[in-house]
Amino acid sequence: MTITITAFETSPDGGKGLARDMRVRWALEEVGRPYGVRLVSFKAMKQPAHMAIHPFGQIPTYEEGGLALFETGAIVFHIAQHNSGLLPDDAYARARAITWMFAALNTVEPPIVEREQAHFTVGNMPWFPQLLDVMNENARTRLSQLSDSLGNNDWLDGTFSAADLLMVLVLRRIEGEGILENFPNLCAYVARGEARPAYKRAYSAQLAVANHN
Amino acid sequence: MTITITAFETSPDGGKGLARDMRVRWALEEVGRPYGVRLVSFKAMKQPAHMAIHPFGQIPTYEEGGLALFETGAIVFHIAQHNSGLLPDDAYARARAITWMFAALNTVEPPIVEREQAHFTVGNMPWFPQLLDVMNENARTRLSQLSDSLGNNDWLDGTFSAADLLMVLVLRRIEGEGILENFPNLCAYVARGEARPAYKRAYSAQLAVANHN
Repeated sequence: MTITITAFETSPDGGKGLARDMRVRWALEEVGRPYGVRLVSFKAMKQPAHMAIHPFGQIPTYEEGGLALFETGAIVFHIAQHNSGLLPDDAYARARAITWMFAALNTVEPPIVEREQAHFTVGNMPWFPQLLDVMNENARTRLSQLSDSLGNNDWLDGTFSAADLLMVLVLRRIEGEGILENFPNLCAYVARGEARPAYKRAYSAQLAVANHN
Repeated sequence: MTITITAFETSPDGGKGLARDMRVRWALEEVGRPYGVRLVSFKAMKQPAHMAIHPFGQIPTYEEGGLALFETGAIVFHIAQHNSGLLPDDAYARARAITWMFAALNTVEPPIVEREQAHFTVGNMPWFPQLLDVMNENARTRLSQLSDSLGNNDWLDGTFSAADLLMVLVLRRIEGEGILENFPNLCAYVARGEARPAYKRAYSAQLAVANHN
């Protein structure tokens, strides 16, 4: 069945792979599944037609036959479950990989996105630098714990999995801010993700949308 | 095999069901699985023995035979996958329920926890009321979208699932702040969750720990 995902018509990052459709594109490239993309404007994202498949008015969504999903964690999990290459077969290893999927999205991502969003919502307030200090510290604590856990391993738990895919893209959202850069093993981890052929194909595909606009 | 989870030795909420072990307790009660609890102090949570099973030094964890998991989303999913009663059998309905599990933890929870944590980290700053206004608005937007999506339905997607379990407990974390209370259908939804016998058993069990201290 044809897979159709949604992505920003005009991505806020100009096609640098930070929009969340990148997670789904990369997962589909890893398992070798072709997909179509429906571009959605910021206005259309909040209209009933899109809200019917994404109650929070965001991208990406995933449609395949009669199934419509939102939430990148769930979409990547769905792809991993129905194709091979993104989750280990061994039951315990699989459960641990799923644990790391949730950790990427529920433990590591929130302080990163919170910090990023604050620039838009309160970035012009005179007290923003004080708030940013606290937010930087929150992000640093999480990355320090993640760095300790990763150690000298290539991936979070054994072989590359959907958890690494999500974690690498979560970490990319704080690149260049002087926090991730304090942890050489995390930078090398991100670089390992970016070096994967499937990552490169997904990156090129989302960049092509931006360059076309 | 015996299931052992970890919980706070001294829960910050005094046993009102807001600590994250409540999610795991409730899930285990729904599927009728007995479990043991190992209580952990705030100091012990950050020590190597606990960090070895929870890299971010938090509770709960889940141990069963040779398997050790952290992240409530992953633990609840693991319980749901290996016991009946928390996820629908139909493949599409199951994928949608998993979508809502991720939505509870990656879309609805972050603005709620962010707002809660800010009270502790910057609550004494003179500019905190201005920040709180922004955070309240972020939380209100998410809850409004969730309220629209739930409508007059009893549960998020068909019958009660692990997604409802997580969402009800996420919503409970913002109870009494004058935000959730603007959405009568969400309040009724939380009350429906709290009325389940399994919820009540889990609540009593975690309250008993607090009362014992």
